[in-house]
Amino acid sequence: MSDGTVRIDLNADLGEGYGAWTLGDDDALLDLVTSANVACGFHAGDPTSLRHVCERAAERGVVIGAQVGYHDLAGFGRRFIDMVPADLTNDVLYQVGALEAFARVAGTRVQYVKPHGALYNAIVHHEAQAAAVVEAVLRYDPTLPVLGLPGSVFLALAADAGLTTVPEAFADRAYTPEATLVSRREPGAVLHDADAVARRCVRMATEGSVEAVDGTIVEVRAASLCVHGDSPGAVEMAGRVKAALRDTGVEVAPFVGGPA
Amino acid sequence: MSDGTVRIDLNADLGEGYGAWTLGDDDALLDLVTSANVACGFHAGDPTSLRHVCERAAERGVVIGAQVGYHDLAGFGRRFIDMVPADLTNDVLYQVGALEAFARVAGTRVQYVKPHGALYNAIVHHEAQAAAVVEAVLRYDPTLPVLGLPGSVFLALAADAGLTTVPEAFADRAYTPEATLVSRREPGAVLHDADAVARRCVRMATEGSVEAVDGTIVEVRAASLCVHGDSPGAVEMAGRVKAALRDTGVEVAPFVGGPA
Amino acid sequence: MSDGTVRIDLNADLGEGYGAWTLGDDDALLDLVTSANVACGFHAGDPTSLRHVCERAAERGVVIGAQVGYHDLAGFGRRFIDMVPADLTNDVLYQVGALEAFARVAGTRVQYVKPHGALYNAIVHHEAQAAAVVEAVLRYDPTLPVLGLPGSVFLALAADAGLTTVPEAFADRAYTPEATLVSRREPGAVLHDADAVARRCVRMATEGSVEAVDGTIVEVRAASLCVHGDSPGAVEMAGRVKAALRDTGVEVAPFVGGPA
Amino acid sequence: MSDGTVRIDLNADLGEGYGAWTLGDDDALLDLVTSANVACGFHAGDPTSLRHVCERAAERGVVIGAQVGYHDLAGFGRRFIDMVPADLTNDVLYQVGALEAFARVAGTRVQYVKPHGALYNAIVHHEAQAAAVVEAVLRYDPTLPVLGLPGSVFLALAADAGLTTVPEAFADRAYTPEATLVSRREPGAVLHDADAVARRCVRMATEGSVEAVDGTIVEVRAASLCVHGDSPGAVEMAGRVKAALRDTGVEVAPFVGGPA
Repeated sequence: MSDGTVRIDLNADLGEGYGAWTLGDDDALLDLVTSANVACGFHAGDPTSLRHVCERAAERGVVIGAQVGYHDLAGFGRRFIDMVPADLTNDVLYQVGALEAFARVAGTRVQYVKPHGALYNAIVHHEAQAAAVVEAVLRYDPTLPVLGLPGSVFLALAADAGLTTVPEAFADRAYTPEATLVSRREPGAVLHDADAVARRCVRMATEGSVEAVDGTIVEVRAASLCVHGDSPGAVEMAGRVKAALRDTGVEVAPFVGGPA
Repeated sequence: MSDGTVRIDLNADLGEGYGAWTLGDDDALLDLVTSANVACGFHAGDPTSLRHVCERAAERGVVIGAQVGYHDLAGFGRRFIDMVPADLTNDVLYQVGALEAFARVAGTRVQYVKPHGALYNAIVHHEAQAAAVVEAVLRYDPTLPVLGLPGSVFLALAADAGLTTVPEAFADRAYTPEATLVSRREPGAVLHDADAVARRCVRMATEGSVEAVDGTIVEVRAASLCVHGDSPGAVEMAGRVKAALRDTGVEVAPFVGGPA
Repeated sequence: MSDGTVRIDLNADLGEGYGAWTLGDDDALLDLVTSANVACGFHAGDPTSLRHVCERAAERGVVIGAQVGYHDLAGFGRRFIDMVPADLTNDVLYQVGALEAFARVAGTRVQYVKPHGALYNAIVHHEAQAAAVVEAVLRYDPTLPVLGLPGSVFLALAADAGLTTVPEAFADRAYTPEATLVSRREPGAVLHDADAVARRCVRMATEGSVEAVDGTIVEVRAASLCVHGDSPGAVEMAGRVKAALRDTGVEVAPFVGGPA
Repeated sequence: MSDGTVRIDLNADLGEGYGAWTLGDDDALLDLVTSANVACGFHAGDPTSLRHVCERAAERGVVIGAQVGYHDLAGFGRRFIDMVPADLTNDVLYQVGALEAFARVAGTRVQYVKPHGALYNAIVHHEAQAAAVVEAVLRYDPTLPVLGLPGSVFLALAADAGLTTVPEAFADRAYTPEATLVSRREPGAVLHDADAVARRCVRMATEGSVEAVDGTIVEVRAASLCVHGDSPGAVEMAGRVKAALRDTGVEVAPFVGGPA
């Protein structure tokens, strides 16, 4: 930006309850983040929760994105499903359209798409499924940005297709020296020290780099930081991240819709 | 109409398969009807079938309507569910939005809403659920017409709310002297003689009346005729109805989008 | 009982999570109750949670019952569904059989059936659905007891059919002068004072009576007391009830399988 | 067998409808096969259809097996799901238990387990999922035989665990020179000439061999032949296979429950 101000978006997964079940503190997170990845009913999210989150987000000026996932409530979208790509394209279209109804009722629009869980991870490498998600966004609205992992096949194919791509970094995840995420199956994959996490986020936002598990500094250029909110500690950590960014002069703002 | 031409719409339920399961001959019906009530995934209809039907409908100029139902695949939406009205409103919004994505990809729009099965029957009398469906349409797009049973609470509330209401008649159902449908649990409720059905449809379109089960003639004013297509005989009967209407000079045309 | 000892069962709903979602503190409740109403997958409960609860219950000597409900995850089984009775019979059989597999793996058996939520409430009066549940138990195993509301059509039909019926009372619910439950829609329907609840439970167990909302004393003869555990306070209240019963010399024991 | 009679079982997939949807002609197949692989509700099969098939099978002396699949109605169990093995074990237990209830009501038992669709194919090679299915059967009832592909990891692990393994051959599928199935994606994978199929089945039953796509004769030792019934032609073909076997003196009989 011409004025030298560093700006970054904060995104989080929201609306991930279902019927009688809740997950995370949506209202607390909506006071912190600038972009809400709203579950669309396939891995989580019933219509009433979609409406609730969209209305609260619109009231606070939080940007609504479609968090699309595999059709697998029992697995919370965390299990890879070897779908026919054309069916995956249609599952994504269905979810984005369903969420759009609630964004519309709330006086706004779905403004980006972010795949969830196992789908997010699959399309880091799986070309056919990555292309299927890109195809859905292209068909639905080629001006919709997509949020994903820097270096993923998904973002590469999306860029090739002319979509706006938004690379994200993870506030509380450890990185390898290759700038990929340390697998959750390994110890130390998730960071729990809120102050350390806040410092990492400031560094990612201002310097575009992070300290990897081996102590080396690797480049991580992100336009959005993903924070979590599925525990009281997580919400507090997200608040700490936001405060640290602001204290450093970083502007926390949505990647879409803001002033140029 | 000023030129004296009688016009009527033909509607049918479409896209009611799910995954590996099919129901009815969608392609054959799409060659006959002018309005397609497309299932939206709650009682039937997977994303790929929604897309297929929307694209075929758009190619043929058949108008797409959202056939919204209870969230009950196992019961095919044919079982009344005593839902909280606010949840029903949101279930309808979700379904209309999901279908809209496919209508949009097909280059068109969802142009009306028709409740399905047990929901259709419930809101003939159930005020709270009828109001919930009306609320969904109002919130989504108050210019969307709704299709329903003449004399139903649903159409009355919809009209009160300023929605366009489209009363329909049933091609192959017997009527009582009170102009309501004979219950499916009674013998003779469904008519199977294609020629007789075709003659009834001509009478309903041109005279606004039908012969009830007791032989009396009752008034049935409908802007659309509902035909079925879930058996080979049903598709043939729908074709006979359409031919008979045309032979009598009745114009078979959608109730929306046609010339004034 | 010949030795004059008063005995009562404590039952609670368990295993009501689904996939990533949890509800209530199953492990804490299993340390308190003598009978576990385990959700069977139709309104809540995934296979892994069924297995977990069955194994923990078996380890503690807690009796396993099938908590059968409507097939409605989105509604948590709390919405009446107007099912064909024969389908309801089969839905109950399916759920009992599924749970039986996990009881069996845990070295025990399903030892009673208790309907859940809207089904529980419906069959207080709905004869066809009550008969459908009775039919399922009769077909599956006519020696299985059923748990239900005293005075319900369900328990009456079950008794007529030769099933063992177990009337239950609710620890934290207000009663009308007619000995029915005060509707949840009315203020004061649910009691929150743990000490008062514990005293009521002692009275129900030892005197077979309870103070109704108008101050009159009404007869409530129950072989089991239902406690809840879906909040930290609820678990504590259940513990208080159990302690109070024991302090008064009431034996807290399952209604099945105990010594004569 | 000591008397020199060759015997073989005929199995088919049954009960694969769901609610309003049907698939295949269950009643026609039940007149032909000796073992029924009954869908258990996760990829297909609602409780009422499970009951119907179990009762018809029991009346005809057809042996009931549990056709267990991934929890994926939308995909009909034909999409690999990368499940946690412990969850797969529990999904299998749930399905077998649910079907057992209906077998029991029909006066019989579940007498074998056969995985369905993508699960069947996955556990030809996928050790963790194969072991998970074996674990479920072992826990449920170690005397239950399992039906699978000769040479599969599944049958190998099942045999190692002490389960009875039943290798099957496919009546209408082409074989490679390595005695594996030609992929459905290749032309000629499925055979349509009923007479040729019948002759192949006789050869497989009497000589334990089949002509591969390249004309070589390969060994295929099977205790059961899988036939299909999802089209009128398929049912007729199954009838032709059975008649040809009998005409050649092969006894068509279940692999369980018959005389030694």
